Amino acid sequence: MMNIPDSAHPRVVIIGGGFGGLSLARKLKGKNFQVVLLDKHNYHNFQPLMYQVATGGLEAGSIAYPIRKVVQDHKETFFRMAVVEKVDTENKKVVTNIGTIYYHYLVIATGSTNNFFGNKEIEKHSMVMKTIPEALNIRSLLIENLELALQTNDEAAQRELMNFVIVGAGPTGVELAGALAELKKAVLPKDYPDLDIANRMQINLVQGVDRVLDAMSVKSSRAAEKYLKDLGVKIHTNVRVTNYDGKVIETATDLQFHSQAVIWSAGVKGAAVNGVETAVDKASRIRVNSFNEVEGIKDVFAIGDVAAMYGDKYKFGHPMMAQPAIQQGELLAENLERIQNKMALKAFTYNDKGSMATIGRNKAVVDLPKFHFNGVFAWFVWMFVHLLSLIGFKNKALVFWSWVYNYFVFDRESRVIIRPFRMYKKNSMAQD
Amino acid sequence: MMNIPDSAHPRVVIIGGGFGGLSLARKLKGKNFQVVLLDKHNYHNFQPLMYQVATGGLEAGSIAYPIRKVVQDHKETFFRMAVVEKVDTENKKVVTNIGTIYYHYLVIATGSTNNFFGNKEIEKHSMVMKTIPEALNIRSLLIENLELALQTNDEAAQRELMNFVIVGAGPTGVELAGALAELKKAVLPKDYPDLDIANRMQINLVQGVDRVLDAMSVKSSRAAEKYLKDLGVKIHTNVRVTNYDGKVIETATDLQFHSQAVIWSAGVKGAAVNGVETAVDKASRIRVNSFNEVEGIKDVFAIGDVAAMYGDKYKFGHPMMAQPAIQQGELLAENLERIQNKMALKAFTYNDKGSMATIGRNKAVVDLPKFHFNGVFAWFVWMFVHLLSLIGFKNKALVFWSWVYNYFVFDRESRVIIRPFRMYKKNSMAQD
Repeated sequence: MMNIPDSAHPRVVIIGGGFGGLSLARKLKGKNFQVVLLDKHNYHNFQPLMYQVATGGLEAGSIAYPIRKVVQDHKETFFRMAVVEKVDTENKKVVTNIGTIYYHYLVIATGSTNNFFGNKEIEKHSMVMKTIPEALNIRSLLIENLELALQTNDEAAQRELMNFVIVGAGPTGVELAGALAELKKAVLPKDYPDLDIANRMQINLVQGVDRVLDAMSVKSSRAAEKYLKDLGVKIHTNVRVTNYDGKVIETATDLQFHSQAVIWSAGVKGAAVNGVETAVDKASRIRVNSFNEVEGIKDVFAIGDVAAMYGDKYKFGHPMMAQPAIQQGELLAENLERIQNKMALKAFTYNDKGSMATIGRNKAVVDLPKFHFNGVFAWFVWMFVHLLSLIGFKNKALVFWSWVYNYFVFDRESRVIIRPFRMYKKNSMAQD
Repeated sequence: MMNIPDSAHPRVVIIGGGFGGLSLARKLKGKNFQVVLLDKHNYHNFQPLMYQVATGGLEAGSIAYPIRKVVQDHKETFFRMAVVEKVDTENKKVVTNIGTIYYHYLVIATGSTNNFFGNKEIEKHSMVMKTIPEALNIRSLLIENLELALQTNDEAAQRELMNFVIVGAGPTGVELAGALAELKKAVLPKDYPDLDIANRMQINLVQGVDRVLDAMSVKSSRAAEKYLKDLGVKIHTNVRVTNYDGKVIETATDLQFHSQAVIWSAGVKGAAVNGVETAVDKASRIRVNSFNEVEGIKDVFAIGDVAAMYGDKYKFGHPMMAQPAIQQGELLAENLERIQNKMALKAFTYNDKGSMATIGRNKAVVDLPKFHFNGVFAWFVWMFVHLLSLIGFKNKALVFWSWVYNYFVFDRESRVIIRPFRMYKKNSMAQD
């Protein structure tokens, strides 16, 4: 049994300290609930800036925030670092590596994970960027590959080590490609004067459909494509990757890439917990009604990326982004109170505040519900919104300072390999 | 063969990018030498602040600086990330994991490593803090132990997890004890309201001789002891640790500690490379003459912690600190030129600028060659000297900002477990 004190109030167990779980926990503060928040990490990470950790622009700590600090002054909130093994909705309990816990209400806010669409070879050989350790692994691999390239004069071998192939041109892929291109332009030639960085380092961005950022407006796609090309990124649209053996990337076309650095950002899926299989859809998300109640399971809710709330406008659920998660968490806090007070529940409607992506210095695209803009102003908006969204004054200041520095000095000083990746590739540690 | 271009100038191979190796490489810039700098990491780390990384006050990146950036504008300097396997002084070559390299002059600047005085049990079970990954492991263990303590109501088990025992009260041990005590006082009770941090968390500092900081003045020792006691650290002088099995620490006295968190800072020794055994002394340091020439081996030099220059005042060599390393590196650059110009060499004399240690907020001790002072002013001096000594404007600014923040907010925000330690204890990754 997990060691949590008894309470006079009903217990809400929240699995996951991401945007959704935290927004819910914060809103439940001071309400008549005991809240138990579970996460396998002791920090919340700000995923939208993960690519900057991977490319040495930000320190890992700048986008990680201790969860305990968020709930520090919540008297009835208990955080536990735990890995959830399964939920038993019949007996209303959650089984974890540190014991079992009973709930009155369960909220699944476990987010999303990488989707390799069943291809084990790609999963085995490519890098991903959903967690901070994974982002740090990409950073290490990037530098390790360049160091390895120094050890050979064979052009083909060098090109293979220096060919960065990003599969998937959603916001993650596009932002990572842009950041890599800036590294290539401003930082790496100075660090590696003996490598022909300008010619032999390549950044290939491979997209299955006909444009990058296909969830955004066509105008944004076009602007992003232009920015990427100006930075030297090679864009390959309508190319579906079919395999990668650690050396060669095969596609459904004649195109083939030789690369020892493939980053997979071509798909995400829900990270549903064990025990709610009856409600899980094809994208591994959990079907919920408009009150975020899990289909057919009493007193169990799902919010954020892992929740699929099918609707007219969002046929297969809301986009897997921070905003729907935050808004659902906030509403669910209200609805849990309404349940306690035997009041009618409020249905969720997504307030789409728009979406944006940055490609590099002075370059971003922004889609608001009514109009699109891009360029320097979009870039400032992007920075402003992201700074404001970061939790904590210290993180805001650290990120702000790093950006100011990187902007004026054209540098990325976090290009250090604290823990090597290649040497430990086959080691589970490298992934966690 | 290592892939380094030929040069018209004689080649100086430097093993180690610490304080000594870097000061030498910098001074050789623009001189008539080809310089090849080898290090197993791609960053220089600022060891004096390592304990703040271990206790969540600083991010790892704030004390790590890319070596390539240091030598970026040195045309004839080549950095290679390499692990040296041995040196072959007869054939004037260095054998590494990325190939062999010939030298005209070899400089060994490999620093120091932990000294367990042959006790394998202690080595296996205790934590150390010589590298950044090791400091991050301590940070992870500290938090993991508190999370584990939450899972039990058994007082003895909790105390064992929360008993931090630091063996060795030199600057490292003292500064770490002070930082842990401040965490205990200001941060942890808020994070863990359900644990009885104030009573059950203990910080024990165990010292083999009769005072802490025994390399400093008696006044400094007394002041440091008072500061530590005020912070709640229990000091045990004249206690020699004899064994630790992962649970119980045995000493040469009746004293025994039950602890799952033992940090070993009781000794260092030279980290000599293979191949110079004839010159290695009992402390694993390499005996050098007053020109830093390795005893009996032509064209091979050693500087810094690994070099033992026996003298009248420093019977077994200089203290293993940054200053002697930096000064020896600088002088050796001059002497290498003198050798080329067939001029007489200059003998090294250590300019002792003093030593200092900080115990916590507003508390430090400073020994200058002529006098001692402590308290708030010493603390400001300590901060000022350390900030100035950091390489790079960005690191200076990040550290400064973190200190200002920690000072006013009484916080340590880097208390996140990016890579867990306990789970991977037996895994080599955890150590590298």
